[in-house]
Amino acid sequence: MLQDQQFLRIPGPSPIPPSVQRAMSQPMIGHRGKETSAMLQTIKPGLQQVFGTKQDVAIITGSGTAGLEASVVNIVQPGDEVLVIVTGAFGDRFTKICDAYSIKAHRLDVEWGQALQPEAVQQYVQANPAIKAVFSTYCETSTGILNPIKELATAIRDVSDALIVVDGVSCVGGVQTEMDAWGIDIMVTGSQKAFMLPAGLTFVSASERAWAIIEANTQRGFYLDLTKYRDNLLKDTTPFTPALSLLFGLQQVLQLIDAEGLEQVYARHTLMMNMTRAAFKALDIPLLTTDEHASPTVTAVKPEDFDAEAFRKVIKQEFGLTVAGGQQHLSGKIFRVGHMGYCSPADVLQTISMIEIGLLKVGKKIMLGTGVAAAQQIYVNEGELV
Amino acid sequence: MLQDQQFLRIPGPSPIPPSVQRAMSQPMIGHRGKETSAMLQTIKPGLQQVFGTKQDVAIITGSGTAGLEASVVNIVQPGDEVLVIVTGAFGDRFTKICDAYSIKAHRLDVEWGQALQPEAVQQYVQANPAIKAVFSTYCETSTGILNPIKELATAIRDVSDALIVVDGVSCVGGVQTEMDAWGIDIMVTGSQKAFMLPAGLTFVSASERAWAIIEANTQRGFYLDLTKYRDNLLKDTTPFTPALSLLFGLQQVLQLIDAEGLEQVYARHTLMMNMTRAAFKALDIPLLTTDEHASPTVTAVKPEDFDAEAFRKVIKQEFGLTVAGGQQHLSGKIFRVGHMGYCSPADVLQTISMIEIGLLKVGKKIMLGTGVAAAQQIYVNEGELV
Repeated sequence: MLQDQQFLRIPGPSPIPPSVQRAMSQPMIGHRGKETSAMLQTIKPGLQQVFGTKQDVAIITGSGTAGLEASVVNIVQPGDEVLVIVTGAFGDRFTKICDAYSIKAHRLDVEWGQALQPEAVQQYVQANPAIKAVFSTYCETSTGILNPIKELATAIRDVSDALIVVDGVSCVGGVQTEMDAWGIDIMVTGSQKAFMLPAGLTFVSASERAWAIIEANTQRGFYLDLTKYRDNLLKDTTPFTPALSLLFGLQQVLQLIDAEGLEQVYARHTLMMNMTRAAFKALDIPLLTTDEHASPTVTAVKPEDFDAEAFRKVIKQEFGLTVAGGQQHLSGKIFRVGHMGYCSPADVLQTISMIEIGLLKVGKKIMLGTGVAAAQQIYVNEGELV
Repeated sequence: MLQDQQFLRIPGPSPIPPSVQRAMSQPMIGHRGKETSAMLQTIKPGLQQVFGTKQDVAIITGSGTAGLEASVVNIVQPGDEVLVIVTGAFGDRFTKICDAYSIKAHRLDVEWGQALQPEAVQQYVQANPAIKAVFSTYCETSTGILNPIKELATAIRDVSDALIVVDGVSCVGGVQTEMDAWGIDIMVTGSQKAFMLPAGLTFVSASERAWAIIEANTQRGFYLDLTKYRDNLLKDTTPFTPALSLLFGLQQVLQLIDAEGLEQVYARHTLMMNMTRAAFKALDIPLLTTDEHASPTVTAVKPEDFDAEAFRKVIKQEFGLTVAGGQQHLSGKIFRVGHMGYCSPADVLQTISMIEIGLLKVGKKIMLGTGVAAAQQIYVNEGELV
């Protein structure tokens, strides 16, 4: 096999664009100097645009989970009641954070591979008026579901003042996100998915309504206290030493997004989703999710007549192509193909062409080229968008 | 279009592997220090293996043309007669170098797209006993021909003592090269093709027979005097300041070749040629060369019912995919797809999938996926080699 070549098609971390890689290798600078302030000044409006908000977006050095924890500890207290909508592995994580802080988390489980139903959440919140916040996941990475968070926010706000918190880690930056217009109170994402960076930064933004709660809250922890990030950001600085290389990279990422155009970025992700789904349909291999609730950033595939793990092993060995397996009870039963961030329609075509050979090698009877042709056809039909 | 993504599928310069890019970004060192000597010590045997020779391989900082010029000025003198076999644009270059030094170059022109015929060369050399050297091209980049240089060397040696000089710029490192066993007297290549580096280094090796001529030669120029390179290489150094970043990269390239295995590297190139050719045949688009004389590093395509230049423009615009056009009288009439160096069968599949869409966009009636399927089938049939 060609040395030094790997195809990373998992739902994050995602590949790093060359210019971002170069940006990150800039010499270190002082984090309290003018250069860092100037960099933060250019980063701030870019993040706001991606989040669809006029609020500040806190830049926290940490994994996405640190951002999720920040979204919990800043708005609720031990003993408070919240609702966590669990549509997969990452919804589940919110309940664990709540447990660690003795927050009473109600759990609304949705079958994995299904999207949350706003009406069901509305009924639950109505029946449990003590619920102070509802935690949900925008793209459920473990199943490839894109939850209808706009409709969710509307449904909750109709009946309750509970804050609406959204984990947007595996899609914000690749999928339209209108935090202000949709009435989302806290939105969290990480750097290693559609943001095309290594993991190490998490971004958190809060609505005016959320800020009122946060400011009234007397126990916000220390490192994850969002007021520290907001107050420092107003002075173009950070409360703690930031991961400067990642900030160099973030600045370049935002320039790339700006050069492509945010609407075009979203259209490209939708196109890549449609191409990927069309390919598997043409190959007669079932998808885990419906078209209606499919995520533009990751596609989960549920093979019926071949072994997902054997298949993953073969494509890794043949081509250095990595796709993700299933998590928890879906382990071994599905595989997930990431198509986010630094990924193009041409990359999707290449991924499908390798997947077809892998399928043949694990004994699946397919006609070579079928999936590629279906994906190409989608590109030809819809590609004008890009 | 996705920013920051380009697909370089021309017959060189070729893409740089990430680990080579990283190696080249090492801090500068002194070129007369122990580190450079240690580096040259590891590079020397690697180059010899690729050239198939026990002779030293001179590392000259310069373009491939500097290497070609070295192969002329070290062995012949003004007024000497030589034979240049011209199978395309790069054969032609030898005649220009000879002109610059008032060397009398006989010219044996072969129709572009055809390979040289060893018997014809033999007859020419026999009829012109004053010929002191025969210059030929291993892979003729402008047409995608791989000339039968092993047979050429045998045919010439049977009737003449003329030195056999081969321009191997666009294939050595990707195609089997046995300088010693085949009786090649001077072999030249450059860094920017199958060597997966930026341009800037040229490698020249000479046989014992050639060294006798070189040493007897009193006018070898200065910078391109091969004895300077050989004598310094024996002491693990270079006569002039070398392009150190490229040496860092070369060291890593040789490690990559060693890790893959040289035989595997050759098998991969042959496979990529076969995949590319099968795709165009399945798409019913004529190739410029026959299977017998096709180069494993570049494929020239000769469209009959669409415009090559319009097609090249479309794929560049849609995908950032660059393939080469034709040179001189083939300009506008052919296009050339490079598949050498840091290029995998998966990259060939991707290239074909983009090319198919480009064909459709310039009005060529094709069934999408046809070429990809043919290339995939070749991979499945022959891929065990890799």
